[in-house]
Amino acid sequence: MTYCLGIITTSGLVIAADSRTNAGVDYISTYEKLFDFSMVGDRVISICTSGNLSITQAVITSLKKDIKTQQETSLHSLTSMYDMARYIGNKLRAIQGEDKEWLKKDGVDWQASLLLGGQIRGENPELYLIYSQGNFIHATPSTPFFQIGETKYGKPILDRILTYNTPIKEAAKCALLSIDSTMKSNISVGPPIHLILYEANSFVIKHHLKLDRGNAYLTEIRQCWEVAIKKAFEEIPAINWFSETEV
Amino acid sequence: MTYCLGIITTSGLVIAADSRTNAGVDYISTYEKLFDFSMVGDRVISICTSGNLSITQAVITSLKKDIKTQQETSLHSLTSMYDMARYIGNKLRAIQGEDKEWLKKDGVDWQASLLLGGQIRGENPELYLIYSQGNFIHATPSTPFFQIGETKYGKPILDRILTYNTPIKEAAKCALLSIDSTMKSNISVGPPIHLILYEANSFVIKHHLKLDRGNAYLTEIRQCWEVAIKKAFEEIPAINWFSETEV
Repeated sequence: MTYCLGIITTSGLVIAADSRTNAGVDYISTYEKLFDFSMVGDRVISICTSGNLSITQAVITSLKKDIKTQQETSLHSLTSMYDMARYIGNKLRAIQGEDKEWLKKDGVDWQASLLLGGQIRGENPELYLIYSQGNFIHATPSTPFFQIGETKYGKPILDRILTYNTPIKEAAKCALLSIDSTMKSNISVGPPIHLILYEANSFVIKHHLKLDRGNAYLTEIRQCWEVAIKKAFEEIPAINWFSETEV
Repeated sequence: MTYCLGIITTSGLVIAADSRTNAGVDYISTYEKLFDFSMVGDRVISICTSGNLSITQAVITSLKKDIKTQQETSLHSLTSMYDMARYIGNKLRAIQGEDKEWLKKDGVDWQASLLLGGQIRGENPELYLIYSQGNFIHATPSTPFFQIGETKYGKPILDRILTYNTPIKEAAKCALLSIDSTMKSNISVGPPIHLILYEANSFVIKHHLKLDRGNAYLTEIRQCWEVAIKKAFEEIPAINWFSETEV
């Protein structure tokens, strides 16, 4: 499995991903799932992927090839994030079109989805979720984050902490805690964690972290969070079993 | 969907369930999913259900009927929790055997699972998870809780707080927070919440709460938890973007 997370706020974007893949529990590997296609000064483009690894690798390879061979349409030539989302969705459809029947007949899941975040000069930062069917939606102030992959364990903390107005560095911290909660509850999500923070209108990614297993900061926030959650739990008033609500 | 939770500790059992069912998003109803089959002084038996409502209702109805008609085998005659789990699993298999083909051909999910918790005089308290296939497992000190239904949102708090040695009233509070986290992140789980607390070797359920929407205590713990989580979040050290981990 995988867990990727994209957040958009008034001041920028956070994109984060774990690195674990598994084909069954006995074949677990590490693959980076966060890819940078930026052109410093002109555009920042960050993509992360979830789902069938052969499909997502084929999409990323094809995106890179279009840039390298200077195709008319590529992530470096398109002039809006919307057009990029459609272009990536079409790549996904084309690759699934080739492979899906072969995967389907052996019961292999061919689903894949992507997050696309970035900013092109002259536009605002945007965040897209591209579904396995190639269609897509964009994040808005009322729904400022998207998750793909193993999304449920890490959602409660986002629901409680994050808003469109959360300072971007706080949003990055929240993303790490969301991934850490997921890793704690599900072994199919694991380090290294890749995290980028993009400040709106800077057109360069200045902050990119890779946190390996045993990384001091990752260990520190996990311990702090455990202690803080236990303290928070202790502060919750005990159940009043003999109130009028007892039946 | 549904969320049910069973916890076993050194000092007893906690069983909790929400009450929301849905057949699609436009047909949402309220059904109790926590059922008591105790005989005060002799045995405490609590069952909660998740999955296809027609299947789980049929199982519960059949369990009640066997007691009412004084069948040789019933929840009141069996002499171990293990035998009860097998008996319930067989009920589930029989009912699925009747209905499964009809549901399957229209693409309706026939899956259902149950939690069985209780204690028979002369035995220790036990907690069982009965799978949709009728097989079952029991909880142990190293895995002291089971969840059925919409389980993922509420798992992180259990993973961080609960152990087999958690005092039973703390375990009940933790169960409520786990359900509240799930309700916050997923509209398919909703009140009233039913919660029982059983103290080992008492052979009577002295604590049974029903918390409706807007219940003062439920509102209070939700607010306290939100405040406490935000405070906990603020206490986590900020990301050190310029440490050696930056790439």
